[in-house]
Amino acid sequence: MERFRKTKEEFEEYLNEFAAFESVPLALREAILYSLVDGGKRIRPVIFLETLRAFCGDVCKNAKKFSVAIESLHIYTLIHDDLPSMDNDDFRRGKPSNHKKFGEGLAILAGDALLNFAYELILECIEETKCEKFMRAGRVFSQLLGSNGLIGGQSLDIENLSMTDEKLTYIFENKTIALLKVSALCGAILGGADEKEQELISKFIYHFGFAFQIKDDMIEFFSKKPPSFCDYIAHYGINKAKEDLEKHTKKALNALEKLKQDTSFLKELTEFAQARDH
Amino acid sequence: MERFRKTKEEFEEYLNEFAAFESVPLALREAILYSLVDGGKRIRPVIFLETLRAFCGDVCKNAKKFSVAIESLHIYTLIHDDLPSMDNDDFRRGKPSNHKKFGEGLAILAGDALLNFAYELILECIEETKCEKFMRAGRVFSQLLGSNGLIGGQSLDIENLSMTDEKLTYIFENKTIALLKVSALCGAILGGADEKEQELISKFIYHFGFAFQIKDDMIEFFSKKPPSFCDYIAHYGINKAKEDLEKHTKKALNALEKLKQDTSFLKELTEFAQARDH
Repeated sequence: MERFRKTKEEFEEYLNEFAAFESVPLALREAILYSLVDGGKRIRPVIFLETLRAFCGDVCKNAKKFSVAIESLHIYTLIHDDLPSMDNDDFRRGKPSNHKKFGEGLAILAGDALLNFAYELILECIEETKCEKFMRAGRVFSQLLGSNGLIGGQSLDIENLSMTDEKLTYIFENKTIALLKVSALCGAILGGADEKEQELISKFIYHFGFAFQIKDDMIEFFSKKPPSFCDYIAHYGINKAKEDLEKHTKKALNALEKLKQDTSFLKELTEFAQARDH
Repeated sequence: MERFRKTKEEFEEYLNEFAAFESVPLALREAILYSLVDGGKRIRPVIFLETLRAFCGDVCKNAKKFSVAIESLHIYTLIHDDLPSMDNDDFRRGKPSNHKKFGEGLAILAGDALLNFAYELILECIEETKCEKFMRAGRVFSQLLGSNGLIGGQSLDIENLSMTDEKLTYIFENKTIALLKVSALCGAILGGADEKEQELISKFIYHFGFAFQIKDDMIEFFSKKPPSFCDYIAHYGINKAKEDLEKHTKKALNALEKLKQDTSFLKELTEFAQARDH
């Protein structure tokens, strides 16, 4: 997707501009930048920027900072999720995970620092603009990511007790979808979407996120990797997974159809996410 | 100190009111509340509330929430600092530390959740009041606690390489004093202190915090506990420690003298902190 590539490049510029971590103690700075500046897919900030653009056309300086806050939060979750006491992953994107490279103590602090940094940026946006949209977006951000959202979802994921339909849905809705939802919904809020439009964007990203995670699990399944604890196919089987991928993709596209704004990018992304093989 | 006890009790009420963690997954909720509701000294929220009161007399509902944000942040630091890859402490306040009780994974998440919760509360304060004082206080909070502040200080503390004067001062100023400074300075900001007054409060709490930590290290020294990596007496010897405790206490009191507000509580607390034996 050419437009995805372009927006991703744009985001990498914002990252360079707003996430320098100057005058931070050297070892901590290295651990932070090792995971933050390493060419991830940047799906979340791209969704944020393109949703914002669908509603208002223009990305102001503070919205750029907000996109960096979203990616910082995402990288924090990756660093902490990889820890031995969580998913215990030694590799991430083909290189040693943060704690394998820097040790557990520094990896925990690098994650903490990125979580805190997201709020440094958001509170800077709020104080500089005094704009109610940033206040709303900041609050939505904090609520969807806390103990009632993403962190709560992760706490169920590491329990590793018996899996139920309800628990799997809870983990999908909170751990997986939370940050995608933050990205799209905060983009819509900052773009000036009204309540009805915010609801449609929430509906879109819910089904997009569900489809996205099912597809991830299918790719793992066909590559014959052992399934993780919270795995759609291990729980429901491949046939239901295929059906549900189809179903959620359709519902995501339906929600976008109801918006009068130009959501061609989000539509294309939804179709691309369903068809991808990696 | 009778007034300390009273304000502490007042704070415990705010904690009950604003930190229920309802509908949070059970195991995570238990891990959070185990450390949050366990009768710590509550020095930081008490300093916050009493500094606020010195400037404006009244504590509004959102300021109460802010006091809970400060303590949540403090408890997050305790949980993460106790982890095996950090200070590796099995006990905290006479009971098993969070990771000994709940396991490392859940302890890390409980810390993350409390860090995030502090910002949930602050962003709630901002959105509900739309008040510039809360915006300023929120930003100060995030800056003093991030990779350029508290988390940066902790990263140097766990390095455990050779200690220098500069490094010890950096760790004291960032790790130890940062959250005390947040407490006093945000109290002053929300109380409506002007810039000159904010500077005096910053000066007061800087010297108060320095004296407080030296005194802590002296108490450990006389109880014959092995010194931690960043220990004032191990580095400078007991005589200089005593002199500096005196010096910082005086400077803290001098800064308060220059304020026209009633700072009798903060003065009493400073003298109490110097004289205490535990």
